Parts: sequence; structure tokens; C-alpha cells
Amino acid sequence: MPDSALLVSLTDKLSASRDAARVLATATTAQKNDALRAIAASIGQHEARVLTANELDLANGRENGLSEALQDRLRLDPSRLAGLSSAVLDIVALPDPVGDVVRGSRLENGLQLTQVRVPFGVVGAIYEARPNVTIDIAALALKSGNAVVLRGGSAAENTNRVLVEVIQSALAEVGLPIESVQTIDEFGREGATELMQARGYVDVLVPRGSAQLIDTVVRESKVPVIETGAGVVHVYLDDSADLTTAVDIVHNAKVQRPSVCNALETLLVSAASADRLLPDVLAKLRSSGVTVHADARARAIFPDSVPATEEDWGTEYMSLDIAVRVVDSLDEALEHIRDYSTKHTESIITNDMARAERFLAEVDSAVVMVNASTRFTDGGEFGFGAEVGISTQKLHARGPMGLPELTSTKWIVRGSGQVRG
Amino acid sequence: MPDSALLVSLTDKLSASRDAARVLATATTAQKNDALRAIAASIGQHEARVLTANELDLANGRENGLSEALQDRLRLDPSRLAGLSSAVLDIVALPDPVGDVVRGSRLENGLQLTQVRVPFGVVGAIYEARPNVTIDIAALALKSGNAVVLRGGSAAENTNRVLVEVIQSALAEVGLPIESVQTIDEFGREGATELMQARGYVDVLVPRGSAQLIDTVVRESKVPVIETGAGVVHVYLDDSADLTTAVDIVHNAKVQRPSVCNALETLLVSAASADRLLPDVLAKLRSSGVTVHADARARAIFPDSVPATEEDWGTEYMSLDIAVRVVDSLDEALEHIRDYSTKHTESIITNDMARAERFLAEVDSAVVMVNASTRFTDGGEFGFGAEVGISTQKLHARGPMGLPELTSTKWIVRGSGQVRG
Repeated sequence: MPDSALLVSLTDKLSASRDAARVLATATTAQKNDALRAIAASIGQHEARVLTANELDLANGRENGLSEALQDRLRLDPSRLAGLSSAVLDIVALPDPVGDVVRGSRLENGLQLTQVRVPFGVVGAIYEARPNVTIDIAALALKSGNAVVLRGGSAAENTNRVLVEVIQSALAEVGLPIESVQTIDEFGREGATELMQARGYVDVLVPRGSAQLIDTVVRESKVPVIETGAGVVHVYLDDSADLTTAVDIVHNAKVQRPSVCNALETLLVSAASADRLLPDVLAKLRSSGVTVHADARARAIFPDSVPATEEDWGTEYMSLDIAVRVVDSLDEALEHIRDYSTKHTESIITNDMARAERFLAEVDSAVVMVNASTRFTDGGEFGFGAEVGISTQKLHARGPMGLPELTSTKWIVRGSGQVRG
Repeated sequence: MPDSALLVSLTDKLSASRDAARVLATATTAQKNDALRAIAASIGQHEARVLTANELDLANGRENGLSEALQDRLRLDPSRLAGLSSAVLDIVALPDPVGDVVRGSRLENGLQLTQVRVPFGVVGAIYEARPNVTIDIAALALKSGNAVVLRGGSAAENTNRVLVEVIQSALAEVGLPIESVQTIDEFGREGATELMQARGYVDVLVPRGSAQLIDTVVRESKVPVIETGAGVVHVYLDDSADLTTAVDIVHNAKVQRPSVCNALETLLVSAASADRLLPDVLAKLRSSGVTVHADARARAIFPDSVPATEEDWGTEYMSLDIAVRVVDSLDEALEHIRDYSTKHTESIITNDMARAERFLAEVDSAVVMVNASTRFTDGGEFGFGAEVGISTQKLHARGPMGLPELTSTKWIVRGSGQVRG
């Protein structure tokens, strides 16, 4: 059982977030931009304090056997801090979604309806060992008029505490409530559990991190969740695919940045074009150090590969590995994608219009492409400016999320005494 | 523990729904409208069968002590059945949201982005003793390209089984998969529990019914839920409220149809206008048989009332009762609404523009009004045609939901070989 004194105090914090959200909801764009500029400046002013706290977390991490990869994600240095400041200033330049009119009409009885964008209220964020997310989510939430409650995990606890203090001093400077950005790291795992139960206090929860973390939040949360999921991303080379296009897109999708969710993981190729395409497509990947996990038919064409197992089809490698399978038809490709895709991004390479349209219509993913690299599934590439994440759920937001996806809507009805007949 | 053979068979049913959803996703508007017309006709053709099954449920209900009110909700007769058929035909006339372009752009690199509406896939519905919901949800889901899995509760089990058979015979007639509409009532409560866990099979769950049913689904479901909530609806009479407008709107909002969620429950009135407004406003309500639950200050002005208790402020009466409170200021009204509103609909009656704007901006409800009856919060009144429900959550949909709210979106990216630099 959670300690009840602790819960009272967590509830107090969440109440303060809710009060702060009320102030932010009616803050002007200028006030919110002032806060973001002050935060960017404050990060610079407190560089030494932030780096000292970060060094303490890193020392604890080394002692507790934190992996090198996680230590790297945790590590801040003057250049990374400057990058964070600069990202906050980028958000100043983005349009404020609050108050945007989504649609409206005048009814026969004279009532004027307007659906406008409003902040969610309080956004909760649960993430792991990535202090950059602290700044990132706080800035995005503030710009869209939301208060934010952060649970950043014990590995980055000291860094996040100082970063939140740095943000709060900037908020105080511009006269916005310091409770607009709060951490609940001091409540440990119980705090995270309570945050997931906090209906009435938290309006939406955004998990960021490993597939396991996201899955836990989706399953345990009573608060609505925006799920940003893993990408088992497919490219399908159709019968009529152009060789050069196929070589370039597959290489770009796999190699340009293999550790991200929009990178290619499984290549499907039609039996009719496998002999023509696979040798050059896979040779180019091999020349960049990619390990090819191929099914029997693909290995027969490209022996410089290892045998693919059933497990490969469901794996998000996030590394220089690719699974390759020869399929008999577009139907078989669509079936494979249905069975193994995480519904993030899939692309068909083809010159056949009818088959392209079938692929676009039948693949049930957040983003479906024809003759383009899957690496384009990205808020920045789509022109949204900020990167809130890529939603793989169907409710509320699907695909790359910009600032408008951090808002809800509200109907405004203006009348002159109308009653219903 | 659930019986494993039962679960295999429930999973089979859900798999069949998923397969049917795939067919529906690419069905043309004409095919879907043909299905709706066939369903409307089929209801007429099988009237006797439906009514016999309904009589059986009613007899069971009487035996099990089902309340008169629930028996009335459960009861079908030739006129109610004709009404259901006619409602299905109304949906034929509504625009098909699937394929609508939400937004799009051409990027500098030549990529063409289009965000289009697509069906969710499989919609689950959990409801109680209301056979009209069976037809209603099935028709709305089909028109928006979704398969639907229904859990309608044991009290209406026979009626719903026959209604689903009637729908399925119509689907077969027009060549759409009969599994597009299925009931899982035969699996009892365990079936409902499994439906709420069925991530990967069910894309969204819509609970319809009592506050308790909705609360259970929201708390227990692992599948994303669209919450249609209760309405503790407020009207605030401001200092400058016009007397006739106040009398008419309060009477309409409370009396025209007291049993629905957009009916008025609590009247707040500023101390500055209470003496001027309350006598006429409340006398008009009393003349329609409304019981006035008033705080001490309101009772002093209008003695023909009963004392309000703390419980009254949080009560959704859904009957000819109203809670009345005198507040010192607009601030106090806003605070009362914050404390007790279910964030459905609130309306201010005023002639003061600045105060109207403050109310519209600061009240955090799905619909906020000035000088209009709260009874206008309704899909039909808003011009949406169909009544999917009124969402009181902030994610995905807020306020009256039309057919577009039963869809998700998908990004289509058309390229000519683009790779990311």
C-alpha cells in the first residue's frame, strides 16, 4: 500500500498543476513565448548546476551498472545543453494552436457555433533516463497552453530536478505559475502508478521510451494515453519497381539512421522481380555493413546473408540488420504486413498505378507511401516544426504529432435567447 | 478463470470482425448505403420475429423484477420498430466521412502529403437493455466503414440476437460480410471483460448507458474508449441577464425533456440580480411541476422550495428537480462550476460582453454557451444528422459526435523516388 501522507502530498502537487493549467489556458501567445525565451536563457545561465547534477546521476549510473548506451542518453554537456536551448527557441517560432477555429456554422435558428482548439489542461509524461525529454515536453506543453507533470525515472532524478528548477525560475520571472511544470520523481515508482490513476487531475498521459515502458503505461493507465509506438516498418518492391529507385530508397530507409522508429526493418520483394532487384539492392546494403536476414528464396539469390527465422519478421532491429522475404504476389505482401506490421509506416516501390492505389488503400498504417523513403515519417519533415512523437494509435492522433495534437477542442455557442422547440 | 474453449471461440469471432472490417474499409459509399437500405427493409420483414423475441425478454424481465423504467426502454412495438427503420434510412442520406481529405500539402522535395479519413476498423459497443442501440450503433458503424461487436446485456439478449440476425441477413443480401455486425452476448459478463481487453482486435470501445456502466468501461478497458458522460449542467444568470430570456431559457433547459444529459440541473444566480430574476424564473418552473432545491439565500427570495444539501450540487437529477444557488460574483459561479460540473454543457445569460467572453473562455466544458438553452447540445441540433453520443472526454472527440468522430485518419505520401538527406 502506498504511504498515505505521500499520496496527500502528490495530490497537492497535482491540484497545483490543475490550478496552473487554468492560468495557462487563457495565457496569451506572447506570454507563453516569453516563458519559452526565459527558459532558453535560464538553461544557459544555470549550465554549471545542471552539469553537476548530471555528473552525479552518471556516477550513480556507473555504480549501478547502467549500460553504456543508457549512460550516453543520460549524459549532458555544454553542446547538448545549447542544443536544448535552441530547440526551445524553435518552438517560439511555431504557431500557437490555441484558439484556432476548427469549424463553425450558423444554424437556422441564428445560433452561432464555433469549434475552437483549447489546451488539454494537465499533460502527464512518463519517460526514462532522457533529460532532453524534460525540456522538450515542457516546452511543447507550455506552447500549447498545458501544464505538465513529469516522471522522468530514477536514473536521471538529479538532472531532472535541477532542470525543473531552472524552468520554474524562468516561469516565475515572466509571471506564470511555477507549478506549470512539475516533477514527481521524488515519489518514485508509486508516484508513476498514482499518475496513471489520476483521472480528474491529469487529462492525457504521453509515455516516451522503450516499447516495454509504453506497453506498461497503455495497459495500466486509467488516464487517456497517447501511444507512441514501435516501428516494424516494411518496404515492398513490386513487380514493376524501378531498380535505381529501389536501391536508393531501401538503402536510405535502412542505413541513414537505423536506430529510429521510421527506419526500414523488413524488405518484401515480389517473386517476379526478385532476381532483377535483390542482387543490387542487397549488395548496396552489405556495402554499408548491413546484415541481411533472408528467407530461403532470397538466400538463393543473395547468398551473402544469414537465414531469417520467424522471430525476424516481428523484430524492430533499430540496428544495421534487415529481414528480407520473397513473396508470390501483392496479396501475399499485404498479408505479411497485416501479420507483422506495428502500423507505423509502409512503402511500396512500383510503377503500376493500380497496385500503388491498392497498397495505399489496404495497408492499415499511420503512414503509407509510394516510391518514397520511410524515413520521411517525421514531424519535422511533414512541416510541423516540433516533434511531439509519432502516434501509432487510431484515437485522437495518428502519425507524426505537432502542437495541435496536444490540444482538445471546445464548442462555443452564441445565442440571443434561443430555446429548443 | 474464463473457460478457455469459450475464449478461443470469442477470439474466433473477433478475428472474423477484423476480417470483415478489412472488407468494409474499402467498400464504396453505394455498397454501404445498399446495406443500410436492406437493413431497414429487413427490420420490417422480420417484425413478428423481433417482437416475439422482445416479448420473451420482457417476460424474463418481469420475472426477474426489472424496473418499469427499464422494461419501457427494453420494449419494442411496431411503431418503435418503424422508427428504427426510418432512423437507418436517415443515415443513408448523411455524407460518408471515409476518404475525406482533412489536410494536405506538397513538400519542397516534391512529396505529396494527404491526411484522409479512414474507418477505425472494429468498434466495440457495451450497453444495457436498449435494443434501439443495437440498430443505431450498427448503422452508424457500417456507414463509417467499421465492423461492430455488440455486447447488449442479458436483459435484451433474445431481442438483440434476432436483431443481429436480421441485420446479418441484410448484409448477406448485398454481399457484405455478415460478420460486419456481431453480438457476443452469448459469452455473458466474461465476454464483456474480454472485449475490454481485446487490444489488437478492437480499435475503439463505445460504452452507452448509465454513469456506472461508463465508469466501469473507462476504468477496466485496455482498448481505447470514447467516453459519453453524464451531464451536471449549469446555467448562470449574470447581473445583467434579461428577465424574459432568463425565464424562457431556464424553463426550456429544465422542462422540455428532463431525462436527457443536456437538461439543466443547477441554476446559479448572481446576488445582484437574484431579487429581480428568481421569483419569475422559479415560479415558471414550479408551474411545470419542478421541485426547487434552493440554498438559504434563494429560499429567502423563493420560499416555495426545499433546502438544498451538498449532495444536490453534484446530482444529475434527470427529473423535474433543480438545484438553485445564489453566488456573490461571476468568480464564485466559475468556481462552483469547476467544483461540480461534469464538463458537458454550461450557459451564461447576460448582456455584458466582457463577462460573456470570460465565461466562454474559462469554463472548461465540451460546450459553453451564451444566451442559449443547454438543450441545443445535440448532434441533430448541431447539424450532424446522426447521434453517436456526446463525448465528455478531451481525447479524440469532445461534445456531440457525428459520423466523422467514428473514423481515424491515415497519411498518404506520394513520391517519385525521394530519399531523406
